[in-house]
Amino acid sequence: MIEKKIKIAICGYGNLGKAVDNCILNYPDLKLEYVITRRDIVKIQSFTTAMVIDFNNFVDNIHTYKDKIDVVILCGGSATDLVVHGPIFSKYFNTIDSFDIHEKIPDYLKMIDDIAKANYNLSCISVGWDPGLFSINRIYANAILPTGYTNTFWGRGVSQGHSNAIKKIVGVKNAVQYTIPNDEIIDKVRNTNSQIFTKRQKHKRECFVVVEENADKNIIENQIKTMPNYFEDYDTIVHFVSEGELKTNHDKLSHAGVVIHSANIDGNRQVIEYSLKLDSNPTCTASILLTYARAIYHMRQNNITGAITVYDVAPILLSNKNRLDVITNFL
Amino acid sequence: MIEKKIKIAICGYGNLGKAVDNCILNYPDLKLEYVITRRDIVKIQSFTTAMVIDFNNFVDNIHTYKDKIDVVILCGGSATDLVVHGPIFSKYFNTIDSFDIHEKIPDYLKMIDDIAKANYNLSCISVGWDPGLFSINRIYANAILPTGYTNTFWGRGVSQGHSNAIKKIVGVKNAVQYTIPNDEIIDKVRNTNSQIFTKRQKHKRECFVVVEENADKNIIENQIKTMPNYFEDYDTIVHFVSEGELKTNHDKLSHAGVVIHSANIDGNRQVIEYSLKLDSNPTCTASILLTYARAIYHMRQNNITGAITVYDVAPILLSNKNRLDVITNFL
Repeated sequence: MIEKKIKIAICGYGNLGKAVDNCILNYPDLKLEYVITRRDIVKIQSFTTAMVIDFNNFVDNIHTYKDKIDVVILCGGSATDLVVHGPIFSKYFNTIDSFDIHEKIPDYLKMIDDIAKANYNLSCISVGWDPGLFSINRIYANAILPTGYTNTFWGRGVSQGHSNAIKKIVGVKNAVQYTIPNDEIIDKVRNTNSQIFTKRQKHKRECFVVVEENADKNIIENQIKTMPNYFEDYDTIVHFVSEGELKTNHDKLSHAGVVIHSANIDGNRQVIEYSLKLDSNPTCTASILLTYARAIYHMRQNNITGAITVYDVAPILLSNKNRLDVITNFL
Repeated sequence: MIEKKIKIAICGYGNLGKAVDNCILNYPDLKLEYVITRRDIVKIQSFTTAMVIDFNNFVDNIHTYKDKIDVVILCGGSATDLVVHGPIFSKYFNTIDSFDIHEKIPDYLKMIDDIAKANYNLSCISVGWDPGLFSINRIYANAILPTGYTNTFWGRGVSQGHSNAIKKIVGVKNAVQYTIPNDEIIDKVRNTNSQIFTKRQKHKRECFVVVEENADKNIIENQIKTMPNYFEDYDTIVHFVSEGELKTNHDKLSHAGVVIHSANIDGNRQVIEYSLKLDSNPTCTASILLTYARAIYHMRQNNITGAITVYDVAPILLSNKNRLDVITNFL
């Protein structure tokens, strides 16, 4: 019996979109139908048989794709792409995105919920590893050991968001930012202390920056270190390097992170820990997006509409195996 | 506004039942109403205001408790208690249990599902850390990185189930069994290999056993080492010790474990790891049972009946906070 595959489209073809395209062959129940991009479509060769379509061309004819796509995976950045793409696509399709500006999530959720509900679609927002898998572990740990404390550490690894923020400074040609967790604090929350530590205590940020020939390095360094949201709450180290050194020594997209929840209950120490160690950060996020695309397709078949988060998705929905197989093999 | 608390009963007052009684005060929306036990009720003093009731007395009048209890947490052992208590209690109440005989889970699930459905109740079976939290992590990891391999390691810690299995051997007075993971194999799956290792490669079992004066130690050692399900698939070390030594050196109920899922994708190594390190194993299991008691109460309010597992419970249902608070604080 050949089951109908779930028809997927990707919107955006940067690191993340490309990774979704590359990973989808590992998901036998999903099929990539379209890659929607603002890039030059003749220069894009999908890893699959998907059709590559120009973004504006697609949007002009968006209603004609309604029955050709089950779920659109939105692969743009949160700040400028998703806030535009989310409302457009959730009107016509079920969508998945990795919206990750924490403080704006409630508003974004409300906006997408209104549109998706009115159009009988289902959207899952903020899917990835943080927000995403780490969020799930924070809620499990806090519900189960409510008297404990949760600390999340990121790194050592490259933060695309922070690298991009540096690149926007005038005089900067290129930049790579590493988030580096404080191993001493990790050791404390793991082994002795149960308390919340501050951002500055938990991480430092190390930046490798290539600047224009006449740029004032002191001014740029100061602009980086005082940048709100991104750097001002952290101890930041800035290195100025050549374009060659950046390409040679800082071209990896590896990342890592850990959520540690620890509680002291009646003299007993209880520690729950969840960690990821990723040579390829985009590949992991892409895999998570694909898994949730499957889940929301099945939830929509059960008449659930609106906008949800990973918190609303029961674990069983993530698997493509049948219920009894999952129970037999994994429970 | 004072919300109505969820009315809980405990059936069984061994290590686990006692831990549930002790932990429930950390869950402000739950209230312990009854402790149901086969022990001498005059010798039991609950940590709460719960009424302690004799098991047979309760069962004789079970229908009179129907509206006085929202969820019964079954705290007995799987092999002899839960197979009896599950069917009795799921006929009258929503239930939670920690049924942990992996190969019998499908049959047990079917039996409870039939009873609970027919009586409009909801039961969640096999709740704990394994099966339970570890199962959830196995399904998440396998769904997200389907080309990877999952290895679960338990220990170093005391397995109640294995200790009890030894105690049932004729001539054995008391026993404590430690499950000890193989650190070299942990290191391999974490850092280099992606493959499944055998039970024997991953763990050894170390037993401290007190025997009757005239017991034949050789026969007992052989009975332990060849015991199906429990020991025959492992390298097992047996030490015979005095009752005094057992009490002095082996009275801790600590345990630990880790689920490691690793995949090599296009030369990139991706590792997802989930671990628990518990000074008190019963306290952790009790906390998980209480959290799922809350969840199934709310699922039953939404008209879900029958028997389910942790796979069917969406993360949001575990928290007692409202949806927006959870999204704001944990996502």
